[in-house]
Amino acid sequence: MFPPGEYNERLRRARQSLQQRGLRLLVVTDPANICYLTGYNAWSFYVHQALLLPADEHEPVWIGRGMDGNAARVTTYLSDAAIVEYPDDYVQAQDKHPFDFIAQEIRNRSWQTGPIGLEQDNFYFTASAFHALVKALPNSRFEDATALINWVRVIKSPAEIDFMQRAAKLAERAMQAGYETLQAGVRQCEVVASIYAAQLAGDPEFAGDYTAIVPMLPTGRATATPHITWNDETFKQGDATILELCGCYRRYHCPMARTVQLGTPPRKLRDTAKIVIEGLNRAIEAAQPGVTCEAVEQAWRETITRYGIVKDSRIGYSTGLNYPPDWGERSLSLRPGDRTVLQENMTIHMIPGVWLDDWGIEISECLHITASGAQRFTHFPQELLVKN
Amino acid sequence: MFPPGEYNERLRRARQSLQQRGLRLLVVTDPANICYLTGYNAWSFYVHQALLLPADEHEPVWIGRGMDGNAARVTTYLSDAAIVEYPDDYVQAQDKHPFDFIAQEIRNRSWQTGPIGLEQDNFYFTASAFHALVKALPNSRFEDATALINWVRVIKSPAEIDFMQRAAKLAERAMQAGYETLQAGVRQCEVVASIYAAQLAGDPEFAGDYTAIVPMLPTGRATATPHITWNDETFKQGDATILELCGCYRRYHCPMARTVQLGTPPRKLRDTAKIVIEGLNRAIEAAQPGVTCEAVEQAWRETITRYGIVKDSRIGYSTGLNYPPDWGERSLSLRPGDRTVLQENMTIHMIPGVWLDDWGIEISECLHITASGAQRFTHFPQELLVKN
Repeated sequence: MFPPGEYNERLRRARQSLQQRGLRLLVVTDPANICYLTGYNAWSFYVHQALLLPADEHEPVWIGRGMDGNAARVTTYLSDAAIVEYPDDYVQAQDKHPFDFIAQEIRNRSWQTGPIGLEQDNFYFTASAFHALVKALPNSRFEDATALINWVRVIKSPAEIDFMQRAAKLAERAMQAGYETLQAGVRQCEVVASIYAAQLAGDPEFAGDYTAIVPMLPTGRATATPHITWNDETFKQGDATILELCGCYRRYHCPMARTVQLGTPPRKLRDTAKIVIEGLNRAIEAAQPGVTCEAVEQAWRETITRYGIVKDSRIGYSTGLNYPPDWGERSLSLRPGDRTVLQENMTIHMIPGVWLDDWGIEISECLHITASGAQRFTHFPQELLVKN
Repeated sequence: MFPPGEYNERLRRARQSLQQRGLRLLVVTDPANICYLTGYNAWSFYVHQALLLPADEHEPVWIGRGMDGNAARVTTYLSDAAIVEYPDDYVQAQDKHPFDFIAQEIRNRSWQTGPIGLEQDNFYFTASAFHALVKALPNSRFEDATALINWVRVIKSPAEIDFMQRAAKLAERAMQAGYETLQAGVRQCEVVASIYAAQLAGDPEFAGDYTAIVPMLPTGRATATPHITWNDETFKQGDATILELCGCYRRYHCPMARTVQLGTPPRKLRDTAKIVIEGLNRAIEAAQPGVTCEAVEQAWRETITRYGIVKDSRIGYSTGLNYPPDWGERSLSLRPGDRTVLQENMTIHMIPGVWLDDWGIEISECLHITASGAQRFTHFPQELLVKN
């Protein structure tokens, strides 16, 4: 948990955002948003839960499963009156829904009268949750407030930057462990185990937290499939492997990707690595406060276009506080059409991965936007890593 | 991937279920259900994706993000025509939704004419996904088909049982590693690292896969908060710790929980452990084919009631194939009111956790329902584990 002043400031900015949207209440369901506003931290998001955040000064209200009430008491600043538990027979029931209960709690506080914002496209807010609310509150007006809190999260406080710097140290340790373990004949799962060990317990001063995405290490032809996970096959001499992983400190992430070649790299890989690194650095230089996201992407695109490389997918996104299934924050993206203006203390994972038919390459940097430009969180050799 | 016959049988049973419900098409979004029906396996569920499953003999169609098409080609039996990629500018966009694209694919195949089933309360099917479908297919009739495929999954094939038996070996190794590492003065994160290493790479013959929930090890007073995760504090002599963890082999899970006491256990913990174990075993004996879920729970409840213990939450659920955030399958629950009749080859995590104001205890078993009764997947001492 952060000091109270941190949460007060977060609540102030969140309420301001609600007021600007004319909302009386926001029903927060994204676990990262609930944690951001209250500190709540437990692996309970596999059942329905919500934070009721009124636009006025009333204390927000956490509502969750009975057995998770203690977690709210331990991890948040909320008063006992603001922690409400629903009975266990609501869990995965066929005859009722936890959002029936949550709707009643909204009514108990007369918060159903004004427009109610819903995180309609955030994780874990299902269509059934929506239907239950609409049915139980037939006279309420609902508005789509997807990612409203995600956009509040986009500017980090000094305390958050500090957490991400710790995550960066864990990411470096994890990458180093992966790099050292990876060799021909070693099973993929063993490299993953070494990455986990380094990320979780590799620093004597602070523990690594679980990462919102597992380490990914596609190898050989599978480097063309960025989101494939490991198995028990062994690495092969001559193959390249992408290591995409993360450090995480108290739910704050610092992701990093590198590509490791076992043996002499094929020319196309070596050449493409140079181009990717050049494009990456042009984009990092462009990532100044006041510049738009699409302009940053353009700096990358202009570079790779000169070399005849085409990439259709975004090259970066906001990162920081998160829960599975994503360490991205679902707000800004570095891509054409995103005119978000970069500001100080935004934090971005710039990952211009290139995936072709049967091979791919990733070299990424997690960046802190400062007054003097983008600073790298991690300091790991920015190159195609070759092991002979 | 399983042999083709396995998928054919799964598809046959799934289609039968669609036909019984009068559905023309099911839009499958739960990653575990997509994997079950096609083998698709990648960490891509942080963006929208779907499997279109027609009730007739047509091949199902996977639709996902462009960069994940290769993962579908690598991990599934689907033909190229049945793998459809949406452009990257649909990802987390504000002006369009991936389900706009998915709706168009439904229309392209004229599958919008009959009733369309939606997994309205499964993970990752957001309210926005629902709204996009309804808007794009205004003349279609939609029906709630939450957990329809989850219920098809409830009876395991011999190949699935085999996978779970491997997961059980990994769970035993992980629990043994946790038990050995846990001692006073050791940081929580170090025990977690040892659990991960054993689960992932502890078996020389097969790799552990990532588990759908991270290991949980609440300690001391936090044993009253079942879903709290680790930090960098050290374990203390005299405290109890709950280890709830899992083995996972190729997305198949075998969960297990034990409670470990450092030093002499307080009398209430020792006494409660005996009662929990007695109740657990009465429930295991009751878990025969033909018996209802609620009758199994009743066997537990009758035991603990004799000793004056009250527990309001369910004592078990179906488990097997899964993805974060839950290794439970969201079908049957062992609790009052659940009249599901147990059948051979159901697989259940029976976890009668007891959580009180400032302490708790968990001793669980993962069970395979066979003609001759419930068989334990793991063989780990079923007791309050005491380390002196």
